[in-house]
Amino acid sequence: MNLILIEPTELKSDGTARLAGSQADHIRKVLKSSPGHEVRVGLIDGPAGTATIIEVTDSFVELACRLESDTPPRPPVDLLLALPRPKVMRRLWAQLAALGVGRIILTNAERVERDYFDTHIIQPETYRPLLIEGLQQARDTRVPEVSIHRRFKVLVEDDLEALCPQRDRLVAHPGKEIGTLFRSPFGTYGQEKSPDLSSRTLLAIGPEGGWNAFELGLLEERGFRRISLGPRSLRTDTACIAMLAMINASRESRTAHKS
Amino acid sequence: MNLILIEPTELKSDGTARLAGSQADHIRKVLKSSPGHEVRVGLIDGPAGTATIIEVTDSFVELACRLESDTPPRPPVDLLLALPRPKVMRRLWAQLAALGVGRIILTNAERVERDYFDTHIIQPETYRPLLIEGLQQARDTRVPEVSIHRRFKVLVEDDLEALCPQRDRLVAHPGKEIGTLFRSPFGTYGQEKSPDLSSRTLLAIGPEGGWNAFELGLLEERGFRRISLGPRSLRTDTACIAMLAMINASRESRTAHKS
Repeated sequence: MNLILIEPTELKSDGTARLAGSQADHIRKVLKSSPGHEVRVGLIDGPAGTATIIEVTDSFVELACRLESDTPPRPPVDLLLALPRPKVMRRLWAQLAALGVGRIILTNAERVERDYFDTHIIQPETYRPLLIEGLQQARDTRVPEVSIHRRFKVLVEDDLEALCPQRDRLVAHPGKEIGTLFRSPFGTYGQEKSPDLSSRTLLAIGPEGGWNAFELGLLEERGFRRISLGPRSLRTDTACIAMLAMINASRESRTAHKS
Repeated sequence: MNLILIEPTELKSDGTARLAGSQADHIRKVLKSSPGHEVRVGLIDGPAGTATIIEVTDSFVELACRLESDTPPRPPVDLLLALPRPKVMRRLWAQLAALGVGRIILTNAERVERDYFDTHIIQPETYRPLLIEGLQQARDTRVPEVSIHRRFKVLVEDDLEALCPQRDRLVAHPGKEIGTLFRSPFGTYGQEKSPDLSSRTLLAIGPEGGWNAFELGLLEERGFRRISLGPRSLRTDTACIAMLAMINASRESRTAHKS
């Protein structure tokens, strides 16, 4: 926990906050902080800052917070993900929040087992603490927005434009070529489309068996370009992390070339 | 399991192999294969190929294997990793093998807890099945070589040249700049050093608290260049996957520019 996140309801108008639960435990047991010590804090979906510890008891920790004036920007990449098996999804929540994702759109697909949608791992009371854990690791305050869609076709045809209007759309699909994102930063990706660097990227990642032909076709009709991590077949969580890291680097590289 | 790996001791001189355990279970229960069916197989540290199922019983599955003539090349990236906590290391083994790593060098560092070295997670009988699981996912046959070093200074000063003589050395260290690997594929990384593309890359990743100044200095003395994934602080497993994906893409991008 590199930053302690505070719920807006915990922050009083005088800037003090009374924490219980895992946040208070962390201050007591890991940081071993006492009154007068400073800790890094952040307001959920608000600014980061520092706080001075006022009181530590067995049931709560009281802080006086000094928050910055600006809320950090939402991470510029959104993820459209075919729901993986619950064990993998459980591991992913914190890692996605740590890497930085603005929106997580979970969808059905032919090769997704229907009963994955009945598990508690896609209930907010399960995933929200995991997202917060990832944000606290990465020192971010912006909780990814999450939506769950049981019908792929309805999602892509009817709902996607409103959720993610951006034109920079990529679909991960197995192939022999690795890293086409970086194939030529001055070529197709950098010049043809000359993407607005302030715009967002939407990345679609399929089930472990891949998208079927219909699903891939529908995504391509909606402007998704295929990218690949190469011939190695990866577990969904590994592929998500690898792809998000590469897209972040690619976006940063484009920014650098432009400046 | 996208490829079934066979131990060299299981392969008889006539090309047949008798499998038990998880491999046989997978053929019976997941693939639901019967005699006459074909499955993808690979010989551990040897060639991949296909096999025809000869017999399926409750205690074994017998296969007739036709292996390719060539063994796939060892993945071109090696990893020097400060041993993370056991829970994280357990998750990493299969993912590292799936992404493709030639050698895994686990080391101590100031911010590594000493008792991490006493856990069974770094015993071959624990990690080898996890490495094989990752290879079977990614359809590779080359098991990463693993070595464990309790003294960082001895490792870097005395043993590293023999283990990893390559000059393309990178050390991950937190910083504000992301993806300097890709900052300019035609600039510093691509031209100044004009790396031999057949050469290997060695990536060093520190403990979650980072390398200390002495450790970082020693690595830099030995030719490691700092790279960063940006200001977000990531868990070791997330950072490993993100960095390896970026290095693989960067290597591939250099190959493409050269051809």
